[in-house]
Amino acid sequence: MTSPSATQDSYPYQNEPIWSKSEKVIARTAFDAALGRELHEVIQEAKRMASQIQQSSDLWDLEHYLTQRRKEIDRKYDYRYSQLTHVFGRLLYEKRLRQEELRGLREDKLKPIRSFAKFLAEDAA
Amino acid sequence: MTSPSATQDSYPYQNEPIWSKSEKVIARTAFDAALGRELHEVIQEAKRMASQIQQSSDLWDLEHYLTQRRKEIDRKYDYRYSQLTHVFGRLLYEKRLRQEELRGLREDKLKPIRSFAKFLAEDAA
Repeated sequence: MTSPSATQDSYPYQNEPIWSKSEKVIARTAFDAALGRELHEVIQEAKRMASQIQQSSDLWDLEHYLTQRRKEIDRKYDYRYSQLTHVFGRLLYEKRLRQEELRGLREDKLKPIRSFAKFLAEDAA
Repeated sequence: MTSPSATQDSYPYQNEPIWSKSEKVIARTAFDAALGRELHEVIQEAKRMASQIQQSSDLWDLEHYLTQRRKEIDRKYDYRYSQLTHVFGRLLYEKRLRQEELRGLREDKLKPIRSFAKFLAEDAA
């Protein structure tokens, strides 16, 4: 069985932009940077929570926090080219990614990314 | 619906010892002491693991450790009089409880407790 991205590279679905080699490098760099920052944030919070544990309920609060964040991160960071405009749109909306980090992507990527970020912002308002 | 211990107090199952008021005080004290020590151990280990987190895999190792310990503790510390001789037998076997902490229980409790501890020791050997 081929992976979704392999399939997509050879036979892009209709309306899905094709990512050039240089765009893939930019996308991977931006993706990894945002993921690294978010993981760093979780690590710092886990250390802070652990240092303040006094009773068992604090312990299970830490477990619950880690489980929730792991699931959320797993869902959010989906590196499939078919998902990437939504992923980046969400990261922009959450201010986990700066527009400059996507510089070099073509407009057929940037437009749906900005559009999804805008949709999320309006949806939350 | 009545809880298992309430049912048991009024209508003890055949072959199950009846716990006197003073025995219940001893049992509760010993149970809480062992649980408190085990929780303290998990808290110390969680703090140690958290302080040494460097990358995301360390973070999820901590989550996994906490989940496993929570489930294990939930299973092990079952304060129903119908379960208590097994619970104390296991705690003795694991050296989480000292024989002296059970002093004051009658022989109809101590015998099955020691017997289960011995069974576990032989089973592990």
